[in-house]
Amino acid sequence: MSSLLVVGSLAFDSGQTPYGKAEGILGGSASFFSVTASYFAPVRVVGVVGEDFDTEHLQVFTSGSIDVEGLEQAPGRTFRWRGEYDGDMSEAQTLETQLNVFEHFAPKVPSSYLDSQFVFLGNIDPPLQLHVREQLPKAKLVACDTMNYWINRKPEELRTTLAAVDLVVINEVEARMLSGTENLRRAARAIQDLGPRIVVIKRGEYGACLFKDSTIFFAPGYPLEQVHDPTGAGDSFAGGFMGHLARSADLSEGSLRRALVYGSVMASFAVEEFGLGRLLRLAPEEIEARFSEFKSMAHFDV
Amino acid sequence: MSSLLVVGSLAFDSGQTPYGKAEGILGGSASFFSVTASYFAPVRVVGVVGEDFDTEHLQVFTSGSIDVEGLEQAPGRTFRWRGEYDGDMSEAQTLETQLNVFEHFAPKVPSSYLDSQFVFLGNIDPPLQLHVREQLPKAKLVACDTMNYWINRKPEELRTTLAAVDLVVINEVEARMLSGTENLRRAARAIQDLGPRIVVIKRGEYGACLFKDSTIFFAPGYPLEQVHDPTGAGDSFAGGFMGHLARSADLSEGSLRRALVYGSVMASFAVEEFGLGRLLRLAPEEIEARFSEFKSMAHFDV
Repeated sequence: MSSLLVVGSLAFDSGQTPYGKAEGILGGSASFFSVTASYFAPVRVVGVVGEDFDTEHLQVFTSGSIDVEGLEQAPGRTFRWRGEYDGDMSEAQTLETQLNVFEHFAPKVPSSYLDSQFVFLGNIDPPLQLHVREQLPKAKLVACDTMNYWINRKPEELRTTLAAVDLVVINEVEARMLSGTENLRRAARAIQDLGPRIVVIKRGEYGACLFKDSTIFFAPGYPLEQVHDPTGAGDSFAGGFMGHLARSADLSEGSLRRALVYGSVMASFAVEEFGLGRLLRLAPEEIEARFSEFKSMAHFDV
Repeated sequence: MSSLLVVGSLAFDSGQTPYGKAEGILGGSASFFSVTASYFAPVRVVGVVGEDFDTEHLQVFTSGSIDVEGLEQAPGRTFRWRGEYDGDMSEAQTLETQLNVFEHFAPKVPSSYLDSQFVFLGNIDPPLQLHVREQLPKAKLVACDTMNYWINRKPEELRTTLAAVDLVVINEVEARMLSGTENLRRAARAIQDLGPRIVVIKRGEYGACLFKDSTIFFAPGYPLEQVHDPTGAGDSFAGGFMGHLARSADLSEGSLRRALVYGSVMASFAVEEFGLGRLLRLAPEEIEARFSEFKSMAHFDV
């Protein structure tokens, strides 16, 4: 089992969906990722929180055996996000963002983290992603996420980061935006040309797909009867995906396929409840049972 | 191998997509279905054409060993459709419909067709679908298609038809419209409650899925680099799906899964060129090779 490092945001989220609302609950890319990935492998977090981040919040990490040495507490308040989802909940409307301590975040990788073999650069400013990546030259696999905000505002910096990673996890709309092409297959190839040899595209309820060399692999979306809150689905997907790779320490094509399915499994749990709710009380058997369900939903010629 | 009957439209289509245009080419649900399905099993067509439907058009059917005894030639012109696709080509804009001989179409099932075991009721007026269905009480599997036009204008008649069939093939938007629910899984169940025990939902570039009892099976969409013309994709899907079932005469779950994949295979060929172009020059090996590609794109744990 290899260790897995994540850098990303820790936040207090307030959100509303057609199925309810939540006020100031723990969220952020590093939170969703690390809680999810910790079911698979030891996780190390790099991030920043404010003075309002108390013991109760910290316990979410420490009780899950997540290494928080890289979690800096800075003067001020924790990053806050407020948003809502309407209709089919395919896209969040951001109502308010308070960067707070995140504004001057300069990620520091503790020396005890330097041997991390699997690295996930969550969706933060591309130069910060690059800064972390450069401190981990020994990593076996470095993956990053990004979003429309950076694609539009820091295209050059984002390209520099992409050129330095092995894998990108990106949603479909953003893959089209980044590549400038509508066609999925050509969009993936255009992104591979920017650096990452593996491209993972998240397609919301339609599942996810993986492009590597000439291989294309699709996992369906899990057909939930009700999605309560899509917040964190993408980072939980990444947590399952990278978690499986770190646990298996196997980068073969078969392992990458299974990683895509574990990512889909964890995303499907994430959206069942608000915030980290469902993810904090999963049994390993539940994860494996849903993995098997994916097999029964996707395999034919049986 | 069992015989397969289709009732539907035969048309002259004129269309435009971002990749080209065509004027007055042979189309219609029965044409796409029967040409596609004829790669799998003997096909019998029930439909109507006008006096402008000449030997050259008829040869498209007869050279593919399609039985045209049920193809009536009526005074007047053949049904004509004009439409266009923009952007991602997910939906056609109908610019003009000339019903012509189709206006007074009263489908007649020749006595030689009465032993048909597999039946596809193409997207026509629901009472006509029912009329054909009732003449084929011995059929092993009766499937139907429908569209928003009938869902909105003949909801009661459509329900009566749905109550008399075993399987419905419907696109995702229409499944939501018919069921009155956004959620895919609940939409499928609501449609099953109307009668068809098997529900097949087409999701365009996102593939297709099948619901039967508690089974859910997903096939991905084939990742083409370029879609030239989506016209007929749905009927070609149905042709591959029903064609496989008629060829195998096997309604087991495994066979239904393979049918969904053969449907996806044939739809992917249909959209590669305008009209019936690509479908008229397929080699059986090409069909099998693409079937294998679907397996390599969807299977994991390998």
